Amino acid sequence: MKIIRKIDELQNKTTAFKHNKKTIGFVATMGYLHEGHTALMEASRQENEILVVSIFVNPLQFGPAEDFDAYPRDEQRDIRIAEKAGADLLFLPDVNEMYPSESMIEMKITDRVNVLCGRSRPGHFDGVITVLTKLFHIVQPDRTYFGLKDAQQVAVVDALLHNMNFQAKLIGVPTVRESDGLAKSSRNVRLSPEEREEAKGLYQALIQGQKLLLEGESNPSVIIKEVGAALRKTTTHEIDYVDLLSFPDLKEINYIDEQIIIAIAVKFQDARLIDNLIMEPNGRIIMQFN
Amino acid sequence: MKIIRKIDELQNKTTAFKHNKKTIGFVATMGYLHEGHTALMEASRQENEILVVSIFVNPLQFGPAEDFDAYPRDEQRDIRIAEKAGADLLFLPDVNEMYPSESMIEMKITDRVNVLCGRSRPGHFDGVITVLTKLFHIVQPDRTYFGLKDAQQVAVVDALLHNMNFQAKLIGVPTVRESDGLAKSSRNVRLSPEEREEAKGLYQALIQGQKLLLEGESNPSVIIKEVGAALRKTTTHEIDYVDLLSFPDLKEINYIDEQIIIAIAVKFQDARLIDNLIMEPNGRIIMQFN
Repeated sequence: MKIIRKIDELQNKTTAFKHNKKTIGFVATMGYLHEGHTALMEASRQENEILVVSIFVNPLQFGPAEDFDAYPRDEQRDIRIAEKAGADLLFLPDVNEMYPSESMIEMKITDRVNVLCGRSRPGHFDGVITVLTKLFHIVQPDRTYFGLKDAQQVAVVDALLHNMNFQAKLIGVPTVRESDGLAKSSRNVRLSPEEREEAKGLYQALIQGQKLLLEGESNPSVIIKEVGAALRKTTTHEIDYVDLLSFPDLKEINYIDEQIIIAIAVKFQDARLIDNLIMEPNGRIIMQFN
Repeated sequence: MKIIRKIDELQNKTTAFKHNKKTIGFVATMGYLHEGHTALMEASRQENEILVVSIFVNPLQFGPAEDFDAYPRDEQRDIRIAEKAGADLLFLPDVNEMYPSESMIEMKITDRVNVLCGRSRPGHFDGVITVLTKLFHIVQPDRTYFGLKDAQQVAVVDALLHNMNFQAKLIGVPTVRESDGLAKSSRNVRLSPEEREEAKGLYQALIQGQKLLLEGESNPSVIIKEVGAALRKTTTHEIDYVDLLSFPDLKEINYIDEQIIIAIAVKFQDARLIDNLIMEPNGRIIMQFN
């Protein structure tokens, strides 16, 4: 695995891969890698000859009240994990390399963002699409892999790639879970032992929602109510949202006759956890989104 | 020359060129081709193996008061000109192909636009960078050619390519002129015989500005005043602006010690004409910007 910190160097390498007809898979991360990330890398390795991983904590996607400086970082550990996962190139630019001066170009996403997590994080996804546009130009991927745990991010990247005619194809990879169902997340380490026990309730509540779909329920508000009730049974912490929307459009619907997402967020003491299931109207789980 | 109207078809072709290590030169136009455009195509042919030309009258860069529908179009004539100029692929998408639905992604340029023509065309360059981002993703050029007559557009594309880390290199190509110095433009046909005679005064006024630089003048306001006076001697029509700015930053300066542009715009009855000279502080004309 080669570690690259300069844009020009990476761009030259990926251009050479293109010239040699090598397919490039790309996993963009903010580091502090866990099994969710390595699942993306594994998916990429199965479909592409070259795996490029980037680690860049992007200041543009942090709000003023969000703690960019305190975001967890462990470069040496990340390097070992990426190497073990089979990355060919690991891109580790610093902030000055990615943003050498204030950009004259602003990108904004105007749909799919005023719901779920986007509602409480204005501008967050604008920062996401801006850094991804830059990274896609540098890496020139054939396919790019994102975790379905961050389902709204997947919906946003889907809009970016289609509306702007990028060559890259988006692959949404299923959420990796602990044995009790808790979705893997860098934030899980911030849970107290009691909170960790409660946290498995997120997945259980989602499974309640799936059960209703399997039984033929097609009224979103019935399902939202039941999932919320199931969640409240397992935790006293603040439920940020429980929602059922079309996916990837993320629109409220009155009747379930298309692909949907049930998404929830709970605020624990030091960690806000999110989880979701993306399903057909009949309750069948969507295993891969593309 | 192959005429292509579908994005997927063009994207497949340009990807195949990449795989075969062919360099791609790209000339983006709004059609109604003239010698200015063919000069771009010729420059591209000298440096690249493949020439892709696009013709697309982009609704996004027309303001509400600007007449998108009345923009001159002559597809059959353009096809003949592009073929004669040696285009390999001519991309002729319709509006639905480029914008099949309202885009969820907005792009905005925040600098280099509140001067010269940009000042009176709010949003114009946002539309330009949006369509160019899409076209660059579709065409995947190694080099892209723009005429220095639209100098502000060159400055904007320069910002877009650098800030967003596009692979493509920008080449600014010198303005093509009539024998009396008038810059070639699709709009020249709208001039009355009297206006056409007056119109050569634009270039003559610019040459006055160059003469002062050659003589060692380094005060922008002296040059702006002289160029304005020279222009007023030749026309009774409204002078939209006479300006001297750094290039490509397009900033006002107090002292000329860097590359600059002298730019002018005059409103004739049915055509607003622009022209400029880009020069070193010593008056030497910049023949190619990249």
